Amino acid sequence: MTRHNQGGHTPVTVLGLGMMGAALANAFLRNGHPTTVWNRTAGKADGLVSQGATRAATVADAVSASPLVVICVTTYAGAREILDQAGHGVQGKTLVALNTGTPRDAAATATWAAEHGADYLDGAIMNVPQAIGDPETLLLYSGSEAAFGAYRPILTELGGDAHHLGGDPSLAKLYEMAVGGMLMPALVGFLHGAALLGTAKAEAKTLIPFTTKWLQMVIDLLPDMAREVDAGEYATDVSALGLYQEAIVHEIEVSEEAGVDTGWLRPLKTLIDRGVAAGHGGDSFTSVIELLRKPV
Amino acid sequence: MTRHNQGGHTPVTVLGLGMMGAALANAFLRNGHPTTVWNRTAGKADGLVSQGATRAATVADAVSASPLVVICVTTYAGAREILDQAGHGVQGKTLVALNTGTPRDAAATATWAAEHGADYLDGAIMNVPQAIGDPETLLLYSGSEAAFGAYRPILTELGGDAHHLGGDPSLAKLYEMAVGGMLMPALVGFLHGAALLGTAKAEAKTLIPFTTKWLQMVIDLLPDMAREVDAGEYATDVSALGLYQEAIVHEIEVSEEAGVDTGWLRPLKTLIDRGVAAGHGGDSFTSVIELLRKPV
Repeated sequence: MTRHNQGGHTPVTVLGLGMMGAALANAFLRNGHPTTVWNRTAGKADGLVSQGATRAATVADAVSASPLVVICVTTYAGAREILDQAGHGVQGKTLVALNTGTPRDAAATATWAAEHGADYLDGAIMNVPQAIGDPETLLLYSGSEAAFGAYRPILTELGGDAHHLGGDPSLAKLYEMAVGGMLMPALVGFLHGAALLGTAKAEAKTLIPFTTKWLQMVIDLLPDMAREVDAGEYATDVSALGLYQEAIVHEIEVSEEAGVDTGWLRPLKTLIDRGVAAGHGGDSFTSVIELLRKPV
Repeated sequence: MTRHNQGGHTPVTVLGLGMMGAALANAFLRNGHPTTVWNRTAGKADGLVSQGATRAATVADAVSASPLVVICVTTYAGAREILDQAGHGVQGKTLVALNTGTPRDAAATATWAAEHGADYLDGAIMNVPQAIGDPETLLLYSGSEAAFGAYRPILTELGGDAHHLGGDPSLAKLYEMAVGGMLMPALVGFLHGAALLGTAKAEAKTLIPFTTKWLQMVIDLLPDMAREVDAGEYATDVSALGLYQEAIVHEIEVSEEAGVDTGWLRPLKTLIDRGVAAGHGGDSFTSVIELLRKPV
């Protein structure tokens, strides 16, 4: 990797101009970088070109324009098809992939980059396109430490809360899943609660002050849970798994009486039942991780 | 209901001295109330008696000692057995039930109280025994508004963040479930993430700064979600259900590759698949509530 000026004048290239890719290109433009853009459907670049971006006719042209090349498309398979059009044109470049995908996708793309002489960073954007450029926006990176060190000032223009998790390029995607995996269960839990309230003609908005406080408590619980997981020690003097078992039995019973679907909830009960059956009834809820690690 | 002095001298009775009941009695003692206690196993009162509580020999004696009677036992069935021992001795008293149970349990106990001439409040303690007495501890009440109004100063001694949700005595338990229902899914989501990280030999504690930030974002999403639920309008320009569907497909794929159990996660995918099949692929995640309201 060649080092370049890290000021606002380092040229950058963005491949892929969906909502997220366009937001990335916009942030680079706002920060004064000569910004080259490419998209399969060239018209998607119009707005960015009117703001000063350069439209590249081919992927190869786009890649050759800048030392730093960011790719952001829907899939890694799509990313590889695009990158193959540049081929060894990526040699000496730093490639940053911010696609949706899996740790395995990231690792495979890192291998491709190594074979083509590019330095590789994989990244996960833990926010919506509208948040790109904010100092608080969280982005997780992994892969080439040298690339992260060299381009950190530019990468933080995309989101100020930028972290390098390690040299293994699959880590960003793994952490993305590990962190993001709380979202859907928590949201379905909230909607389930709102559906329950609806059966008593109570509005969902009346839940907000209580759920806010409750989630703050969940946040406060996590460091202790992490310590228990890392130590493999599940002793507790607060709420044991057996109490959670009673609570979920009640929740399912009440939901069914109220006519709210419990299809998504019953497997959680099964998991807790298995934990109690395995002797964890008096242990912390954290002990459930032992079961998650051993698929049935 | 007779109104009584609301200062520290109002006598109170606590029936049931498990961890939570003992914490309640302790809070009353600390606040200077003449406190009468009763427990099926009388020895459980020893500690409280040494701090100034009066041990009642029978439930009837305990109930007759105070205008305000708090009961906190493991089940409502247990509570009813105990209250039947006082029978019409509860006449003119205010009865506050803080047991574990369902909205239906609460409603049935309210009916019993009405038949026996007692004013009734049902409550849900949204915290652990160790938090009883803190000004920030959340307690939800429902039932007699007059009782809540009269005894509010005493009830806030148990937890300062005390709310009366309405005259329907089942509401406290319903809200408890609606709020608390986010806990287990969120915690299992966290442990699932920790199990995933474990497959890359990364420690759970390295997740904490990111999950903290992520849950803060979830908290920030909820008011908008509640508005969508209350309006029944699910249009979105941010993250549509179809994107969540892609994310959960990835999550299951990666978890299975890594050998982490997905039994609890697959029904969430099924729910989202049903939402997309019902035409909500371009709608907000909130649209999932339509399916929860219609059990399969």
